[in-house]
Amino acid sequence: MSFEEMWADLLPLGRDGTGGYHRFAWTPPELECRAWFADEARRRDLDVEHDANGNMIAWWRPADGVGGDAVLTGSHLDSVPGGGAFDGPLGVVSAFAAIDLLRKRGVRLRRPIGVAAFAEEEGARFGVACLGSRLLTGAIDPARARALTDADGRTFADVLHHAGLDPEAIGPDDGLLDRVGCFVELHVEQGRALTGPVGVAGSIVPHGRWRFGFAGEGNHAGTTGLDDRRDPMLPFAGMVLAAREAAGRNGTVATVGKVRVVPGGVNAIASSVTGWLDARGPDDASVRRTVAEVDAAARAAARPHGVAVDVAEESYTGVVEFDLALRDRLAATLGGVPVLPTGAGHDAGILSARVPTAMLFVRNPTGVSHAPAEHAEIPDCLAGVEALAAVLGDLAAG
Amino acid sequence: MSFEEMWADLLPLGRDGTGGYHRFAWTPPELECRAWFADEARRRDLDVEHDANGNMIAWWRPADGVGGDAVLTGSHLDSVPGGGAFDGPLGVVSAFAAIDLLRKRGVRLRRPIGVAAFAEEEGARFGVACLGSRLLTGAIDPARARALTDADGRTFADVLHHAGLDPEAIGPDDGLLDRVGCFVELHVEQGRALTGPVGVAGSIVPHGRWRFGFAGEGNHAGTTGLDDRRDPMLPFAGMVLAAREAAGRNGTVATVGKVRVVPGGVNAIASSVTGWLDARGPDDASVRRTVAEVDAAARAAARPHGVAVDVAEESYTGVVEFDLALRDRLAATLGGVPVLPTGAGHDAGILSARVPTAMLFVRNPTGVSHAPAEHAEIPDCLAGVEALAAVLGDLAAG
Repeated sequence: MSFEEMWADLLPLGRDGTGGYHRFAWTPPELECRAWFADEARRRDLDVEHDANGNMIAWWRPADGVGGDAVLTGSHLDSVPGGGAFDGPLGVVSAFAAIDLLRKRGVRLRRPIGVAAFAEEEGARFGVACLGSRLLTGAIDPARARALTDADGRTFADVLHHAGLDPEAIGPDDGLLDRVGCFVELHVEQGRALTGPVGVAGSIVPHGRWRFGFAGEGNHAGTTGLDDRRDPMLPFAGMVLAAREAAGRNGTVATVGKVRVVPGGVNAIASSVTGWLDARGPDDASVRRTVAEVDAAARAAARPHGVAVDVAEESYTGVVEFDLALRDRLAATLGGVPVLPTGAGHDAGILSARVPTAMLFVRNPTGVSHAPAEHAEIPDCLAGVEALAAVLGDLAAG
Repeated sequence: MSFEEMWADLLPLGRDGTGGYHRFAWTPPELECRAWFADEARRRDLDVEHDANGNMIAWWRPADGVGGDAVLTGSHLDSVPGGGAFDGPLGVVSAFAAIDLLRKRGVRLRRPIGVAAFAEEEGARFGVACLGSRLLTGAIDPARARALTDADGRTFADVLHHAGLDPEAIGPDDGLLDRVGCFVELHVEQGRALTGPVGVAGSIVPHGRWRFGFAGEGNHAGTTGLDDRRDPMLPFAGMVLAAREAAGRNGTVATVGKVRVVPGGVNAIASSVTGWLDARGPDDASVRRTVAEVDAAARAAARPHGVAVDVAEESYTGVVEFDLALRDRLAATLGGVPVLPTGAGHDAGILSARVPTAMLFVRNPTGVSHAPAEHAEIPDCLAGVEALAAVLGDLAAG
């Protein structure tokens, strides 16, 4: 199966009428993506390892059976709601295609190569981004993870159980991590910073998610006077505008892209509104200041309406500087590719706390991501496969 | 079946864990309510007429078989999302209980009495309030109604078809309306204006619903700079705040209680946000002015963000003055009950365009409505049944 054939097989899975993807962890479209992964591994005689946290790794092992100091690559298969085709799957498809190139060229491995598909990278179902890699590396408490719920109120523990996994077995897996010597994730770029086909990541900026709950009093939209209302929609709106202002002041970005309104009737004052804040910036201080200012503005907006505010940090990742030696080695192998920071979180950011980690980016001509219009040209994707093959060959067979 | 027994049978249908009701038209809980209605009619030997628009009427006919000049009563069985138990069902249960009282007292009818359950009064599923009574009276174009969609994108025509109704047959039904001499709807009060157990409606204030669509550009929340965004959430927030301010200026009420965000991911700038505005006021001019001001504010807020705004009026009902002669007759029958205006829309408001119409209100001690805490005391409900029986007896047997 060529890159283009693998890509064509994945394209229909979980696509909606607008071309956007809905591949939430352990929903039917994402299970189809997992089956696709297992099929591609089987075609290549790669052993698929299922870890306790829902992550999958397809292993290409050296002929002498060496099992440690592995070179891990891959990315994730899940998507945001209405996401693009490239964010995640490009790294997995490119990894299989790079293995095909190395084999075609008769490369003999000294170290194993693993193709990973990490679970729930987007956090679109359970709210915590990079859930699979966080569990693997111990970056989230397993008890907290088990209690996470999806939009239908189902717990992560329940979903794992139905997927045939033991919810009590999730958590850090040193046995697996000790076998990994380094991790290289290929990913579509999510801005327009890359002018050539391929680049190398320097760092991931600090980023996190905060849940703002506004609790008021549900009532009739027609018979309740303005002064008798405790309408949580009003301070929610104030919080949305305050987020934009705080981001402008602090040189950060802040976004409210998800809202839940209860009960959500046209002719009913809401009883509660929940809004999620995504904030990122060049350093911890600017992000923390942004969130503190939004928090203060939300509480100030809620007070005159008798609305209670509850703010919870759902996830936070400080600045990630990728491994300098590994980055230099990639740059030397690829010759003169640019090094860029990224505003997007990745499993690579989580893994980097435990193993030397690097990232390759493939050009995104419009910079659009997390939307149906997300795109990379096939020639750039194939350049990405070549680059990844060169890097994997250097690391695992050089 | 006494009032209390009927009430107890209805209480579990469509109730969620918070005590709120979700009885959307033709969903399973509402179909259970319809089955309950048919059972209660059967117990009383009332013939159930199903009209072409999804409304049901249970008929008690005089012994001489007179079919015209009927006295219609009843209300609706559907609810807003997370609504209360009383809004709608109280009028239907009270109508059956009033018939029981009249029969127990040996009243002999001269005119038929019909107990109506109108379809989709709340508009919670298809967006247009009083859809059943609007169709019946010709207040909405049948073609427009057929094309209405629910949150899952199913058309009203498709839902009617699956309910065994012919979507092509919906629309005004003069044959039915010509048999109706007057309509008296009993309803729980939705404010705190009523200090005694029962009152009579004077008028319904002008009210309507407007859908505000904001179309921007979906993108990644981390990698898209503030200046590169076309985020529709920001002008939506501006519109929410503008609605409150415009209502304050114009002596009206304005509410945004329903929002739809696409795609709705935490880490994605929304591509579109839709917010629904409910506006009501003492006269047409104040409501129209409120909506025009919100419209202008929404467009002004959207312009600097490159967001397109589309505003659609989903429904509008001008002031309804109930029939004066009928209201005086009710007041004379009941003796000294207060007359109040209401800020809530009702099927009675729609029917009043075609037949003399009146309303009875039952006291709501907290004024809460469209919320789980909506309540009326049982003694007040029984006083309502007595009042309705007196009115029906006067009109149909007096």
